[in-house]
Amino acid sequence: MNTTDSPSAPSARTTVRRSPHRGVYDRDTVNAIFDDALISYVGFVADGSPFVIPTIHARVAETLYFHGSPASRMLRLMKNGAEVSVTATLVDSIVVARSAFNHSLGFRSAMVIGEARIVDDPDEREISLEAITEAVLPGRWDEARLPTRNEDKGTLLVAVPIEEFSAKVRGSEVNDKDEDYDLPIWAGAIPLSTRVGTPQPDPRLAAGIEIPESVRRFTGTA
Amino acid sequence: MNTTDSPSAPSARTTVRRSPHRGVYDRDTVNAIFDDALISYVGFVADGSPFVIPTIHARVAETLYFHGSPASRMLRLMKNGAEVSVTATLVDSIVVARSAFNHSLGFRSAMVIGEARIVDDPDEREISLEAITEAVLPGRWDEARLPTRNEDKGTLLVAVPIEEFSAKVRGSEVNDKDEDYDLPIWAGAIPLSTRVGTPQPDPRLAAGIEIPESVRRFTGTA
Repeated sequence: MNTTDSPSAPSARTTVRRSPHRGVYDRDTVNAIFDDALISYVGFVADGSPFVIPTIHARVAETLYFHGSPASRMLRLMKNGAEVSVTATLVDSIVVARSAFNHSLGFRSAMVIGEARIVDDPDEREISLEAITEAVLPGRWDEARLPTRNEDKGTLLVAVPIEEFSAKVRGSEVNDKDEDYDLPIWAGAIPLSTRVGTPQPDPRLAAGIEIPESVRRFTGTA
Repeated sequence: MNTTDSPSAPSARTTVRRSPHRGVYDRDTVNAIFDDALISYVGFVADGSPFVIPTIHARVAETLYFHGSPASRMLRLMKNGAEVSVTATLVDSIVVARSAFNHSLGFRSAMVIGEARIVDDPDEREISLEAITEAVLPGRWDEARLPTRNEDKGTLLVAVPIEEFSAKVRGSEVNDKDEDYDLPIWAGAIPLSTRVGTPQPDPRLAAGIEIPESVRRFTGTA
């Protein structure tokens, strides 16, 4: 689906039009954004209408994977090799400018457009199921009860190649008009990040089961 | 665009298909999700392809507003009254199940499908510009240098009615299979929220300008 020879060059569709200096087209940047983001937004066209569904994803090399029930509208449509757009965004800050007009967000956003492919190969299915669990909580695959044959059969797995892609990155710098720097108005940035709280045990947890390594690492509890 | 008489009933397009018990169709829930979310994801169709663009939004009563440069691809397409889908999602937790299969996220997600409308009326333009600034940082409109006539002219404002909508809400409860509750595997939830950091002044900030009320309130600094 690339319209250029270079795997890292943007196509006409993924070229950043607005603020082109913020367009980033290298694969590492795009991969890092998808790896950092817990969910992405899958856009698709159904009966001519645009839909956007938030979903868990995992990246394995140059492929994004999604999973779900075969009954889901999104995944049923993907069955037909439909074209999809996948966007993930991390908001890093609120940019507080002197002028109302120049208020903004610091962010990193990645977009991929590609054709969905149903994952049938048993090896690829296992790799992608593991990757999706690991994307939710790193280290969890080796702790959890692994999928049964029925659970595996009941899961639709979809792959989207990271071939036609771009990223857009805005730092936290303030960009006010020259004349506004003399105004007696505060400007700067408010950093935003994800706060990870204290693990809450399932009320049905049996006595004597300790918090596992994956949860301790993720929550920074020793 | 509603396909039913009730303003709060879902249409065929906004009915939650998967896990229908998680579908929520009241306006207050949808409004609250858009109010809490700093960005939303706007899906649209261009040349038959789906696009998903993250953007700042504001809600005023039963309308969502977006702004941007008249040169942006998204906003240029919206000019034509194109159909758009707007989705905002808040991730509240990682749900850690005993089985890999039942790992999930606790989340609140809202979706609106509607026809975009360009905002031309001067009063509505001012209300929506104020709402967008206030959505980024409450209380900032009264502190910032307000838009000039040129800035106003250089801003495309788009409205999408919250008429055809739905929400999907999943709490942080673990849903394992009955037989899995006997496994010696920890289960529970890891709460996630937004961490608001310490305000970082613009390096070009003139001496003697104190952190304003809006920033102090947002960051919880006295």
